[in-house]
Amino acid sequence: MYGIILAGGSGSRLWPLSRELYPKQLLKLDGDLSLLQSTFKRLQSFISPENIISITNIKHANDVKFQLAQIDKNSVVLAEPMAKNTAPAIASVLEYLKQMKNPDEIVIIVPSDHLVKNTEAFNATVKEGMKAAENGYIVTFGIKPTYAETGYGYIKTNGEVFGINKVEQFVEKPDTKTAEEYLKNGNYYWNGGIFMAKVSVLLEEFEKYAPEIFANLKKLNFKESNTIKYGVFEDMPSISIDYAIMEKSDKIALSPLKSDWSDLGSWQSLYDVTQKDSNGNVFDGHVIAEDVEDSFIYSDKKVVAAIGLKNVILVNTEDAILACNKNDSQAVKKVYEKLKKEDDKSHLVHKTVFRPWGWYTCLAEGEGYLTKVICVSPGQKLSIQSHNHRSEHWVVLEGQAKVILNDEDNYLQAGQSIDIPLKAKHSLQNPYDKDLKIIEVQKGDYISEDDIIRYEDVYGRV
Amino acid sequence: MYGIILAGGSGSRLWPLSRELYPKQLLKLDGDLSLLQSTFKRLQSFISPENIISITNIKHANDVKFQLAQIDKNSVVLAEPMAKNTAPAIASVLEYLKQMKNPDEIVIIVPSDHLVKNTEAFNATVKEGMKAAENGYIVTFGIKPTYAETGYGYIKTNGEVFGINKVEQFVEKPDTKTAEEYLKNGNYYWNGGIFMAKVSVLLEEFEKYAPEIFANLKKLNFKESNTIKYGVFEDMPSISIDYAIMEKSDKIALSPLKSDWSDLGSWQSLYDVTQKDSNGNVFDGHVIAEDVEDSFIYSDKKVVAAIGLKNVILVNTEDAILACNKNDSQAVKKVYEKLKKEDDKSHLVHKTVFRPWGWYTCLAEGEGYLTKVICVSPGQKLSIQSHNHRSEHWVVLEGQAKVILNDEDNYLQAGQSIDIPLKAKHSLQNPYDKDLKIIEVQKGDYISEDDIIRYEDVYGRV
Repeated sequence: MYGIILAGGSGSRLWPLSRELYPKQLLKLDGDLSLLQSTFKRLQSFISPENIISITNIKHANDVKFQLAQIDKNSVVLAEPMAKNTAPAIASVLEYLKQMKNPDEIVIIVPSDHLVKNTEAFNATVKEGMKAAENGYIVTFGIKPTYAETGYGYIKTNGEVFGINKVEQFVEKPDTKTAEEYLKNGNYYWNGGIFMAKVSVLLEEFEKYAPEIFANLKKLNFKESNTIKYGVFEDMPSISIDYAIMEKSDKIALSPLKSDWSDLGSWQSLYDVTQKDSNGNVFDGHVIAEDVEDSFIYSDKKVVAAIGLKNVILVNTEDAILACNKNDSQAVKKVYEKLKKEDDKSHLVHKTVFRPWGWYTCLAEGEGYLTKVICVSPGQKLSIQSHNHRSEHWVVLEGQAKVILNDEDNYLQAGQSIDIPLKAKHSLQNPYDKDLKIIEVQKGDYISEDDIIRYEDVYGRV
Repeated sequence: MYGIILAGGSGSRLWPLSRELYPKQLLKLDGDLSLLQSTFKRLQSFISPENIISITNIKHANDVKFQLAQIDKNSVVLAEPMAKNTAPAIASVLEYLKQMKNPDEIVIIVPSDHLVKNTEAFNATVKEGMKAAENGYIVTFGIKPTYAETGYGYIKTNGEVFGINKVEQFVEKPDTKTAEEYLKNGNYYWNGGIFMAKVSVLLEEFEKYAPEIFANLKKLNFKESNTIKYGVFEDMPSISIDYAIMEKSDKIALSPLKSDWSDLGSWQSLYDVTQKDSNGNVFDGHVIAEDVEDSFIYSDKKVVAAIGLKNVILVNTEDAILACNKNDSQAVKKVYEKLKKEDDKSHLVHKTVFRPWGWYTCLAEGEGYLTKVICVSPGQKLSIQSHNHRSEHWVVLEGQAKVILNDEDNYLQAGQSIDIPLKAKHSLQNPYDKDLKIIEVQKGDYISEDDIIRYEDVYGRV
């Protein structure tokens, strides 16, 4: 059996914790693993790692690869060269599986940013749907509605096939009244975007209902390279898998999801699935509360004093704060779009950026300079690189540094410093067993992450 | 005529904008001047600067001197060697005026942290009370109540003396019912803590009603030095001027204050006196609001997204956030006390600390190191100093630096750096006409502001 993890998706819903370049699936919202990592582990409980293919936007590919390599180095990550909704992404991975594996096998397709805690119950749903999938059905996993949600699409079932429900129709997001009817009716399920079928069955449906996508697939040659070619992908229409296939196919069955499920699509829904204290509060960070109820307060570093609040979401990150009535948390997307329009950096990246070798935080910036604190994990090293527009000055704060500068090795203790001139080849390394922290002062006429020439990189980023 | 500005006071009410070491009177809450500076300018409209004496706690003395010197270099600042409430402070300044000036003159005593915008109307109140003061009365300025406030003391008037009200009685903070009666009665005023009288009259009342304070005054010798001696001040009881004198004296008159007045004693009261937009909001900083009403949002650097809030105070500073229902803003004091108990630095100081020569911000700290960005204003210089427990490393970010290191002058451009070894005599100076910004990395076994030996200081701090 194969798995496809859809690891695209923007960072708007859980802003300011999620960002365009660090979307929800990369966040550790439930313990030590990110949603992406948890999703991978869930599939790994019944699929071999090398048969789990993740597909993500090119801008998230390094982070997705890095996070998945922490779980299993054999997983495969394909990069969409541009954002094109789910149908072209899924079709490309199906083509990969056809070329590289066995088209008669069953594949399960799952979003990477949903929360499912009960893996056993999830697997039981897979098992229940297997017979229908083996017999040529596309089995979607329906979520039994618990209230009249208007933010999801619904799936109407009617009758039975191979021991599960037969699907009559996919229906769009309803208004409140219609949602209430669906809830009462009992034959309607939420569309959770999880489904499984034979690779060949799905490709046949693409051929039948989305020929503009299907026609391009044969131009992809995965035996040559694991790259989805820009020119080929560009020619595919931007369309969702629901519009492209699911709403049209007459081979759809539905297996009611036996596990818990949340799409974590808003701060409200994150609050809903998180354990609360006796006042109904969720606090993460240094919070001093007086008379606060049913609220969610997250602060990464600063102390937050909260007084007399009820039903409030307060999220503090290094460069942005969200203060929101819990019932209005859908409007976070609106704010995110405004920030994007303003070109405010806080929609795009975090101040602290995680890299395979550690992390850095921007401390101060001004005309012609930028100051960072950089932390290199034990045993890690940054690529050998040079910059055309900036010099750098490094001061060791903690730990010890090995600095390669123009092919010469330098060893620095805490308190020592070194100048990296313009265009000099250099690499910062930590061959020791404690974190290395340095202050970096960049000086130059053009200061940007893209002013970098990489010569050697242990993380494959040359 | 003389003026006494009471510039003590803690930083609890407007936390996190105010701090123990940067209390309310030093804040610029109404334009370019701090409340202290505005108070000084108000008195300066009818008193010569050298006759205005400010008294403050020793820990705020440098900041008070610095702020007042920006208005007029002739003003006098006395330092209380410890906090002792208002009576010992006022008595000490009265003794100063008796010894150094003329005890028959009239003095006006005012808090430094109240907001009064209409100076003309304030001065008219002074004028109206003058005759009573000249004739041996202590004239207090009463504020006509506009609602049944329970947080202030009241003053009951009865009859007339020299064209203003005669005071029958000072009364304590009332409960709501009593406050409503006072409001209806019409003869009650709020006690704003502003009063004037002859120096000699006040000293006579101290002799009569507070002999434990009065007896110590003659041990102060201001002709020798402008210092209030620790041993003498220590012997005075900690008591307010109201308890010590005003509630007992039978020579009290009341001049109703003709100007606007606010004690800015809470975030609610700061909101009340600030101009609002059409939704009743006060925003200061980068605020993106959706459906927000009657709220006060302040953020020094970060963007704040506010959604669906009503009647909320949100204050973001570099190291602490307050999120508070506007009606509960009196509880801020409670939070402040908790932080103090926890020994959380955010009750004490700001991350950005203002100095006569510019400012610094702590960027990062860890075991054995501290990183600051330091800004030296044009023409300013830090003292010649050395440290016994830390070395320093400076990197120039912006502007140019003159660095004196062991009596040698060094000149650094942006991007250049210098090491300041342990115990080396050094000074950072900016003899140029643009701001100088540097990164300072301190390294050592003990890193604290008190590890400093000053040899020369243009701001008199040696």
